[in-house]
Amino acid sequence: MSNYTYQHFNVTFPPEQQYVAHVEIHRPDKLNAFIEAMWLELSAIFTRLSSDPSVRSIVLTGAGDRAFSAGLDVKAASEGLLSDSPESDLDSARRAAHLRRHIVSFQDCISSIEKCEKPVIVALHGIALGLAIDISVAADVRLCSSDVRFAVKEVDIGLAADIGTLSRLPKVVGNFGWVKEVALTARTFGAEEALRVGFVNRVFGHKEEAVQGALELAGLIATKSPVAVQGTKELLNYSRDHTVQEGLRYTTVWNSAMVQTKDVSAALLSGIQKRKPTFEKL
Amino acid sequence: MSNYTYQHFNVTFPPEQQYVAHVEIHRPDKLNAFIEAMWLELSAIFTRLSSDPSVRSIVLTGAGDRAFSAGLDVKAASEGLLSDSPESDLDSARRAAHLRRHIVSFQDCISSIEKCEKPVIVALHGIALGLAIDISVAADVRLCSSDVRFAVKEVDIGLAADIGTLSRLPKVVGNFGWVKEVALTARTFGAEEALRVGFVNRVFGHKEEAVQGALELAGLIATKSPVAVQGTKELLNYSRDHTVQEGLRYTTVWNSAMVQTKDVSAALLSGIQKRKPTFEKL
Amino acid sequence: MSNYTYQHFNVTFPPEQQYVAHVEIHRPDKLNAFIEAMWLELSAIFTRLSSDPSVRSIVLTGAGDRAFSAGLDVKAASEGLLSDSPESDLDSARRAAHLRRHIVSFQDCISSIEKCEKPVIVALHGIALGLAIDISVAADVRLCSSDVRFAVKEVDIGLAADIGTLSRLPKVVGNFGWVKEVALTARTFGAEEALRVGFVNRVFGHKEEAVQGALELAGLIATKSPVAVQGTKELLNYSRDHTVQEGLRYTTVWNSAMVQTKDVSAALLSGIQKRKPTFEKL
Amino acid sequence: MSNYTYQHFNVTFPPEQQYVAHVEIHRPDKLNAFIEAMWLELSAIFTRLSSDPSVRSIVLTGAGDRAFSAGLDVKAASEGLLSDSPESDLDSARRAAHLRRHIVSFQDCISSIEKCEKPVIVALHGIALGLAIDISVAADVRLCSSDVRFAVKEVDIGLAADIGTLSRLPKVVGNFGWVKEVALTARTFGAEEALRVGFVNRVFGHKEEAVQGALELAGLIATKSPVAVQGTKELLNYSRDHTVQEGLRYTTVWNSAMVQTKDVSAALLSGIQKRKPTFEKL
Amino acid sequence: MSNYTYQHFNVTFPPEQQYVAHVEIHRPDKLNAFIEAMWLELSAIFTRLSSDPSVRSIVLTGAGDRAFSAGLDVKAASEGLLSDSPESDLDSARRAAHLRRHIVSFQDCISSIEKCEKPVIVALHGIALGLAIDISVAADVRLCSSDVRFAVKEVDIGLAADIGTLSRLPKVVGNFGWVKEVALTARTFGAEEALRVGFVNRVFGHKEEAVQGALELAGLIATKSPVAVQGTKELLNYSRDHTVQEGLRYTTVWNSAMVQTKDVSAALLSGIQKRKPTFEKL
Amino acid sequence: MSNYTYQHFNVTFPPEQQYVAHVEIHRPDKLNAFIEAMWLELSAIFTRLSSDPSVRSIVLTGAGDRAFSAGLDVKAASEGLLSDSPESDLDSARRAAHLRRHIVSFQDCISSIEKCEKPVIVALHGIALGLAIDISVAADVRLCSSDVRFAVKEVDIGLAADIGTLSRLPKVVGNFGWVKEVALTARTFGAEEALRVGFVNRVFGHKEEAVQGALELAGLIATKSPVAVQGTKELLNYSRDHTVQEGLRYTTVWNSAMVQTKDVSAALLSGIQKRKPTFEKL
Repeated sequence: MSNYTYQHFNVTFPPEQQYVAHVEIHRPDKLNAFIEAMWLELSAIFTRLSSDPSVRSIVLTGAGDRAFSAGLDVKAASEGLLSDSPESDLDSARRAAHLRRHIVSFQDCISSIEKCEKPVIVALHGIALGLAIDISVAADVRLCSSDVRFAVKEVDIGLAADIGTLSRLPKVVGNFGWVKEVALTARTFGAEEALRVGFVNRVFGHKEEAVQGALELAGLIATKSPVAVQGTKELLNYSRDHTVQEGLRYTTVWNSAMVQTKDVSAALLSGIQKRKPTFEKL
Repeated sequence: MSNYTYQHFNVTFPPEQQYVAHVEIHRPDKLNAFIEAMWLELSAIFTRLSSDPSVRSIVLTGAGDRAFSAGLDVKAASEGLLSDSPESDLDSARRAAHLRRHIVSFQDCISSIEKCEKPVIVALHGIALGLAIDISVAADVRLCSSDVRFAVKEVDIGLAADIGTLSRLPKVVGNFGWVKEVALTARTFGAEEALRVGFVNRVFGHKEEAVQGALELAGLIATKSPVAVQGTKELLNYSRDHTVQEGLRYTTVWNSAMVQTKDVSAALLSGIQKRKPTFEKL
Repeated sequence: MSNYTYQHFNVTFPPEQQYVAHVEIHRPDKLNAFIEAMWLELSAIFTRLSSDPSVRSIVLTGAGDRAFSAGLDVKAASEGLLSDSPESDLDSARRAAHLRRHIVSFQDCISSIEKCEKPVIVALHGIALGLAIDISVAADVRLCSSDVRFAVKEVDIGLAADIGTLSRLPKVVGNFGWVKEVALTARTFGAEEALRVGFVNRVFGHKEEAVQGALELAGLIATKSPVAVQGTKELLNYSRDHTVQEGLRYTTVWNSAMVQTKDVSAALLSGIQKRKPTFEKL
Repeated sequence: MSNYTYQHFNVTFPPEQQYVAHVEIHRPDKLNAFIEAMWLELSAIFTRLSSDPSVRSIVLTGAGDRAFSAGLDVKAASEGLLSDSPESDLDSARRAAHLRRHIVSFQDCISSIEKCEKPVIVALHGIALGLAIDISVAADVRLCSSDVRFAVKEVDIGLAADIGTLSRLPKVVGNFGWVKEVALTARTFGAEEALRVGFVNRVFGHKEEAVQGALELAGLIATKSPVAVQGTKELLNYSRDHTVQEGLRYTTVWNSAMVQTKDVSAALLSGIQKRKPTFEKL
Repeated sequence: MSNYTYQHFNVTFPPEQQYVAHVEIHRPDKLNAFIEAMWLELSAIFTRLSSDPSVRSIVLTGAGDRAFSAGLDVKAASEGLLSDSPESDLDSARRAAHLRRHIVSFQDCISSIEKCEKPVIVALHGIALGLAIDISVAADVRLCSSDVRFAVKEVDIGLAADIGTLSRLPKVVGNFGWVKEVALTARTFGAEEALRVGFVNRVFGHKEEAVQGALELAGLIATKSPVAVQGTKELLNYSRDHTVQEGLRYTTVWNSAMVQTKDVSAALLSGIQKRKPTFEKL
Repeated sequence: MSNYTYQHFNVTFPPEQQYVAHVEIHRPDKLNAFIEAMWLELSAIFTRLSSDPSVRSIVLTGAGDRAFSAGLDVKAASEGLLSDSPESDLDSARRAAHLRRHIVSFQDCISSIEKCEKPVIVALHGIALGLAIDISVAADVRLCSSDVRFAVKEVDIGLAADIGTLSRLPKVVGNFGWVKEVALTARTFGAEEALRVGFVNRVFGHKEEAVQGALELAGLIATKSPVAVQGTKELLNYSRDHTVQEGLRYTTVWNSAMVQTKDVSAALLSGIQKRKPTFEKL
């Protein structure tokens, strides 16, 4: 396995789950709060995993017992981008132009999770605020432990969330009134409520169980045809943003190439022979 | 507080919830059923509240014990727009042109709730039929008391609902089969079912409790930065109707101006000082 | 009633539910698995029912105790379209062009259920895999019996589902994480889970009860104004794929003609006279 | 004819062109430059003409020899909205919120020309800068005299044009490079160039001829079925903003009512009888 | 060559242009005016040509000297669909429903030209009114002779054009003011004007020259790789209806299969060897 | 001026045109044909210029007398991506996945011209084939010399153009029939035809004059407010891809920040004082 060494993340390849990468946010002494260097690293990692043929699914977790992530490192941000008087010689329009470039770049980093061609399972625990939500909704499946404390925290620092939550959460959870309530109040919600509204797929007892559950789910997905799995992720994300008719049209073109894979006959033959199929790398 | 006096609505500003307006439909002897003058007033009220700097969130309720609203006043409508022989000298195309203008105007009135820049919480009780649903889905959050009886009633008068329910309900409730069932059958559903499918956020015992709950929720929202709150409403409504990518793009432009608010430093400082921030009017 | 005779489907008109057609998939010895001739028939049936004035709603079920449908007849497909070496003299691009035509044609057949102007209720039982899901999500309401076993099975044969599931399921069920999980893993889920996430509207004890429940629901819908019912189906499907504003605009144009129906006065008069209205054929 | 009296506009009904309204911008001593009161009046006029059954088409011109309009009255604006220190106590976010409301309101006024159900022909002459272009592209047909001097002037006052030119000009003129050049440089262009790129339909010698040409074109349109004419305007504007398929779908619903007009038989009969048809008011 | 025999059309395969089909509207005694049977045949022909591997491009012309087509056979239509009292026992809503089905079916027939996978060149001459325009804009390239007389004729029979002109003409000709003028006035325009605005690509002296020019253009296209040609038609039509970004995305998926064609190496090798490539059928 | 040194491009800052960058494709011995290293460099250059505050507009030209660019270096490509047997051990689906990644990356490089915040003027001369068209349509304004020979060349190598031409050309030139003809035939067209259809804005005698003309146009744009210019580019590109209504909405949000620039008062004051304004860097 090639060398994935980063400053703020641990990337490992658990031997018991073939083709699965485990990405761990690793700044536990700061509750895994994010500084700019971290979202740049996050993007680099997921971009690389996206085309690594030895990876078929990915698990994302946070180091330590206390927090998946406390979100943006507000202290660092308040000395930088959110500072009261940054670039004070600029007029408001020029400051806006600079801010826009910065937000675009930040959004692009988080979107690398969604753009990653392989499914991403996120296992959440403890504190999971603000940017933790932006990150979670860019992933494909969310699992959590029972101690998790979520909040769409941005209004509490005077901001509308702009790194993905407001764009993606209404498409992840089909309960628009609930989305509005949690985004407008910044109130905390826990595992049970998250499960009820569909923000998470399953609740585990402790963090370790949630991480284990995520690895097993990722492992299961990694046993399937990578042609089929990566096509399914792409087509579901496409459908989310298009009409049914557009979805069907894009699907025909996609599958006109993908149905030609040898994985179909491999899968069919394995089914007949009652054995597990193996698929070539992709 | 300026003077908000209307014929069919009471608009008050409850002193215990700063920056909150309370709009009450007030035609209790007719179960708050709507005649044309009422939706014109409704629109005038919400348009005015939208830019009133002393208002940061709004609660909408119905007067009396029996009904939030029985919907369209069918008797009045059947003598007017829905009359069997209106404008009998016109051909069908010309009648269609007149009807179209009328429906557009009616829709615009109800859409004033959605267009209102401040969050709108609706507290529903008793009878809530037809137009009551159109109104509810144009609001941001729906609460109710346990005695509520909802129905998308329009098919029972020979009509497809055209004032907003069919356009907004599928985006409010992420259960398309349920939406189809209640819209195609006009059957009644109660508080528990409404909560389960996500049509309402919470169920209260009695009307008074629901109204009180709505006022407290509105009050909580009104303590937050109005720049953050109004941006959140706008961006969530925008996201509902756009792809994730379009949502992100619009968000960057929006926030390139809004992040320059002093509310950010006010909120951050209050957080450090453990006191409640105050925000300038917007 | 005109003669609806088909090779793989039984089409009947149950006398106890006026204006209701009952379409039964009838290949029970093969678990109602689909071969090409069947989806062509399915399309012919729904296209015809769509404009048959004596039909106002439709129930779709599967014959036999064991399966609504096992999906695509994989054995037949593996000798045809999914064969390892079909048209082996063609280059990949030409094969892709042929496959694309084929998938478009297959999709169009299943979409005939959605395009059918009358509501379609599907009653699911036993095995319901792969294509059974594509078919279900093209219908308006899904009911099931408690023994049902669902799976979005396609990744298990090396494919991304391309006949409708990936385009429609995320719009039917507002829980994107769950949709991704079941589509990426091909795991089975049962009636209770299907109800919880909103894939089905109701669970019945046995198949017979589910079919009976579907017929009664279809019967109830068939008592309503067909102008109102068909408009409601059309406008809800339109709204699913458009912004709220586009939905409202289309609705005004649609209803500018439809409000001119005599069904409105018929319905209003019946309401006053406390009797059941009758509506002309459409 | 009802009374259309306004402060900054003359609205007349030239007897030689039945059903035609002539709207003249009337502030010739200021080169017909616009102050806020004027765009509010403009909107009131076109909204009223839109539903006036005695009007079937409209001509818009500017009073005086020198200018159709010099655009925004920059002097007035620089003391108001564009002032260097307006509302200087507001932070940039709050100023942005106020500006946004103002721009929306301004845009809505100009869009009243496009929303007007009847075709609008604009006859341009002399100076036609900035806002004159925004207004022109909201109309249906542009004619001009040979002395006209156009410019998309906004970049010369430090602004991107925001009242319609940047949104509509690329859809009016199918030459994107030319649109970019004139918008990025603010350079002047004349009648011949405007004709060549398709910004105007025809060039006349003098202003009087252009106005007369516009009245005759409007008069010709006013002899046609108003059902057909108003449908054509609506459907062409709809098509501009939608796919071909969406255009076709909307057209079917529109015409399902409109084809029922008596104008069809009136027109067909007149064709057979070689006489001019008359159509009822709409 | 297989047998293409139709009642109202001649379909031939001119030997001097390999892979080219020539479709001729053949009802010259009625100026090639269309009755319902004709558009049904037209659709059958183009659907069949679309997948006929021996056809790579198509020319469409009208028989006789006087007219490409006078459009809809108004006499036939006025006894049928456009009759003053059709189905007089139906209410307006039911008539609208029937009309809608009819218009959809008519539109689909004409759209078969656009959906045809091979490029369609139309050569226009003489009278070309109403439906002739709807048909022309569904084709890929329009050529004409100098005697042609075009008109978007529908408003003269009390209708907004609904079979494609209003949806497609604004996308074919990038001069929105001109499109509005000719559609709102129904005025005639000739070859020179059609060339100037881009409605036709080239003007020939006489009909025979135009037909010959069309056959040569079709013949040239038919010498190219059919994979490349059919992809180009599909991607250009897709781009017309989508954003640049959507167009690019669809293109990548399309070409990920199509670039695998042997036609690329065949074309490259021919280029090196200075000889004409041959391509396999598609 | 910072150091812009690249292998295949010359980037200079002509002293007579302040704030203008001149990018020259520099591989004249190969007719400026592109190999992969070149489009990667192109992207790096435009991404860097996009945020370089000392640059306000950009000119793109080709070195040497003979060619702006002969397009893709087909010889290099046929040994790489377009090779007959690349990665021969992969099945068609896996090859398609690799090709898709490659095309996306190639498209992104060319799109960097469009994404560049500053206007890009391209001056074309001599041979300008295939990729030269993809590049040109990603720029804002196209100028040329009279000797230019254009062709959308891709069908001649068995491909549908996939790096931007098919997505952007129909939006640059409002003559869809002409676009189809040149894309389906790969025929050459010259300066005069390019001017007539609007592909280029102006034709100059020789290459040097075209380059000089481009520098002067860029220089003129660079004298304007950069806030206004960059906003105009952004809003015009946005409008191309959106409805008028969406364009207006985005414009309001954009300008709510941008109108706050000091450039407005600087421009207004300069206008009054009849002197040239200066604007701060952006």
